[in-house]
Amino acid sequence: MYVLKAIFLGTSAATPKPKGALPAIYLEHDGLGILMDVGEGTQFQLMKAKIGFSKIKVVVVSHMHGDHVLGLPGLIQTMAMASRKEKLIIIGPRDLKDFLVEAFKLTKFWPPFDIFFYPSPTSVRIKNVEISTFPVKHTIEAYGTKVVVRFKKKVLVEELEREGLPKTLWGRLQRGERVVWNGRPFEPERYTWEPEPLKVVYSGDTAPCERLIGEAKGADLLIHEATFTSDMEEEAHERGHSTARDSATVASKANVKALVMTHFSNRYESLDKHLEEARRVFPNSFVAEDLTKFLVLRRALRPS
Amino acid sequence: MYVLKAIFLGTSAATPKPKGALPAIYLEHDGLGILMDVGEGTQFQLMKAKIGFSKIKVVVVSHMHGDHVLGLPGLIQTMAMASRKEKLIIIGPRDLKDFLVEAFKLTKFWPPFDIFFYPSPTSVRIKNVEISTFPVKHTIEAYGTKVVVRFKKKVLVEELEREGLPKTLWGRLQRGERVVWNGRPFEPERYTWEPEPLKVVYSGDTAPCERLIGEAKGADLLIHEATFTSDMEEEAHERGHSTARDSATVASKANVKALVMTHFSNRYESLDKHLEEARRVFPNSFVAEDLTKFLVLRRALRPS
Repeated sequence: MYVLKAIFLGTSAATPKPKGALPAIYLEHDGLGILMDVGEGTQFQLMKAKIGFSKIKVVVVSHMHGDHVLGLPGLIQTMAMASRKEKLIIIGPRDLKDFLVEAFKLTKFWPPFDIFFYPSPTSVRIKNVEISTFPVKHTIEAYGTKVVVRFKKKVLVEELEREGLPKTLWGRLQRGERVVWNGRPFEPERYTWEPEPLKVVYSGDTAPCERLIGEAKGADLLIHEATFTSDMEEEAHERGHSTARDSATVASKANVKALVMTHFSNRYESLDKHLEEARRVFPNSFVAEDLTKFLVLRRALRPS
Repeated sequence: MYVLKAIFLGTSAATPKPKGALPAIYLEHDGLGILMDVGEGTQFQLMKAKIGFSKIKVVVVSHMHGDHVLGLPGLIQTMAMASRKEKLIIIGPRDLKDFLVEAFKLTKFWPPFDIFFYPSPTSVRIKNVEISTFPVKHTIEAYGTKVVVRFKKKVLVEELEREGLPKTLWGRLQRGERVVWNGRPFEPERYTWEPEPLKVVYSGDTAPCERLIGEAKGADLLIHEATFTSDMEEEAHERGHSTARDSATVASKANVKALVMTHFSNRYESLDKHLEEARRVFPNSFVAEDLTKFLVLRRALRPS
């Protein structure tokens, strides 16, 4: 059972509501924490969600609008206070680096740990997790994020038991080596299989976007902004945003397994309409609320 | 009854606690709101305290450490979203201006209302309220803030009734004009009096500071940082901070009417010890907690 956690720390667009913090999503797979967007107050939301700051290895900022980035300097300062030594990887638009450098310089702070900055679009691989960013359609330079978790090759247990290959040699096949046993060759291609990678895609702020549909193809989880409902479609697109129906259409075209909507305009008291119009297009749609957690589970099934 | 409200929005030092937001204090007199320090998340605390952002006319930042300033760009962006038109006065160290300009530039935002920036040390008068900043003793350039509310002159009602001066002429005396009635001169100095100004002083971050004692002389309310308790005195002073006992000593030397301590290190679970050691030196001491409100009341008594 492969597990990836997605915790929505803030689900409001632009300005916070008393019960809707600013954009931030935490993903975790096997102890590797990835924070996507860092609205003001993200550090408080992380505390509320009881997520240790040291778990965060990578921060991805989708674009430079304040509601997505103003929490980052403070988060880094708190990490420093907590004596972080481990490097932090930061991915984002080129201006993000200048923003951090200026904020640190002017608040008389310099992080006591290394920060590695990768300007978007980029792709960074940490162990078996690949994090890449790709352009989306907003009013300013903005990127979607794709997180792909790859799994180790597995041996075909039943076949190998039937052929009688000793278990001590299985590891070699798994590592892609050819094994010869009792004069008989065992090809790794024939006796191993690779579980399909797990994929999570986050839209950032965007109007409906073809590139995003391509990147999200077959994803286990699509996290898509749904700032407005479809009665506001024109305004949404003009402002580089999507409606709930748009996000469901993207989910449907990309044939993802599940859609979670986030980044809701302050004008909505309830998200019932978002859910309703999305489910009409894509039934497996959900709305995120602050501090809700989605578990992406998948049994490592051998492809048939 | 003259009233000034002080609402403590955040009372933690340096890093937030689940129940201790970062430094921010809101003062209000007669509809004029003054925000002193703006830690990350101040806009959320303002919402929790149900303080309308439009009430804030002046922001004073004591020094450039992140925990006192990182909430300001986001607050200004939210003010803009709320269609603020009215100018905002900002007082703080010179670097604060650069910080705001860089943050706005890099997050592709420009405030749609005027911001008037006054570098500290300075003094700004708005109607009957004078806000001034003065240097204190921290590890970087840092300022205390003094807010003085002046009241209109009042006429000596009993005397004027006894002399028989018609009420229609009292306003002139109040405005400082000399009145001649039935050939008899009435001097404003003799028939009016000025209520003592109301004074609130906020230390910002500082080690015990002589200048602060001078500025706080006779204040109605001294808000003083008390990052540590006295067992940490040496470390406190080295790091440009005060202990609870220090803050009470300042209160006592300045002969203020009340002391409220704030800016507590994360190391303290309870503030009992702060309170106890302060009250030993200055009995009228209090500790601030997030969202507590102190009302400064004073009857306009004629000086004897």
